[in-house]
Amino acid sequence: MNFSSKLIEEAVEAFASLPGIGKKTALRLVLHLIKQDVDKSEDFANAILNMRKNIKTCQQCHNISDNEVCSICTNKHRDSSVICVVENIRDLMAIEDTGQFRGLYHVLGGVISPIEGVSPFDLTIDGLLERIEKGEAKEIIMAISPTIEGDTTIFYISKQLKGKDIKISTIARGVSFGGELEYADELTLGRSILTRTTYQSE
Amino acid sequence: MNFSSKLIEEAVEAFASLPGIGKKTALRLVLHLIKQDVDKSEDFANAILNMRKNIKTCQQCHNISDNEVCSICTNKHRDSSVICVVENIRDLMAIEDTGQFRGLYHVLGGVISPIEGVSPFDLTIDGLLERIEKGEAKEIIMAISPTIEGDTTIFYISKQLKGKDIKISTIARGVSFGGELEYADELTLGRSILTRTTYQSE
Repeated sequence: MNFSSKLIEEAVEAFASLPGIGKKTALRLVLHLIKQDVDKSEDFANAILNMRKNIKTCQQCHNISDNEVCSICTNKHRDSSVICVVENIRDLMAIEDTGQFRGLYHVLGGVISPIEGVSPFDLTIDGLLERIEKGEAKEIIMAISPTIEGDTTIFYISKQLKGKDIKISTIARGVSFGGELEYADELTLGRSILTRTTYQSE
Repeated sequence: MNFSSKLIEEAVEAFASLPGIGKKTALRLVLHLIKQDVDKSEDFANAILNMRKNIKTCQQCHNISDNEVCSICTNKHRDSSVICVVENIRDLMAIEDTGQFRGLYHVLGGVISPIEGVSPFDLTIDGLLERIEKGEAKEIIMAISPTIEGDTTIFYISKQLKGKDIKISTIARGVSFGGELEYADELTLGRSILTRTTYQSE
């Protein structure tokens, strides 16, 4: 692309450095900002800067947080006897959005993957074990993607917790609500028959 | 979406205020910035701010510019006898990218549209007439979208220039290169027969 302005070029490159944004989209965003008042661009830039400079990682659950300990961990109304273990912050947010979970979280920061060189020590598993050691949690829910790496991670954590008085569960796996059986993959459909649940009429 | 952090929420909303970026994409961009160094976010915000604060409109052709007069207008190697009239800056950039035009431009800032309340006086037509009055231009090329509003705009400008010693041309309209005839719309295909050009073997 041919920019007659160095300023535009730099701004386009800044946007285009973000994932999923190409040069054409970046240019559209830049021209949008030019059409608007300078104030809008200032608000935009300040929101980004302010976030990036002040954002912290929760010392307890490793969620992103405005303070040393996040608003979920400090919320007295949440059930501290259940810890939901997730891979990353996006998964935590997805579960929060369901509104179905009122316990605490623990963000691992990834899953064990020998291929990608991620060992258990690269994750926050030690912190999780420490939290469980303190004795408040009675159950941990493994809300981790059903992949080989995810299953390995669940297996590793469960081994570390062997002999401890704590219940370990995983989120249910099966066909999606609203999904048609014929389009479900074989493995999921097969497992959903093996792990069938008793029907309860209301 | 449920954010446990006010900082994240504000940054997501800043990104989501841009056209074509939803909350999910905005969150992905914010989490991307968090993963990177603070410096990267500073560079990003500064590029945007610097651009928005210092960008100017070229006093001659109304292109966006780093200075009072843009780099195209001040380029001595360009042909000042031809002015290409475009609707907006994106169209100017698209033509520049072809590398086929070495003249100057004039950005109208839109097209005449009674429905949307855009009158000739909302556009930079007066500036264009003034430039032509000065006498350097011998031809103006109307590179304006072939819509009713576009055609109205071309008609209006040509009327204003009646009696002046200047050639007015429009960009060629016809079937696209590489396009299949059967998929071309009737109007374009019909016109392309009426406005056929003499075949020249090389």
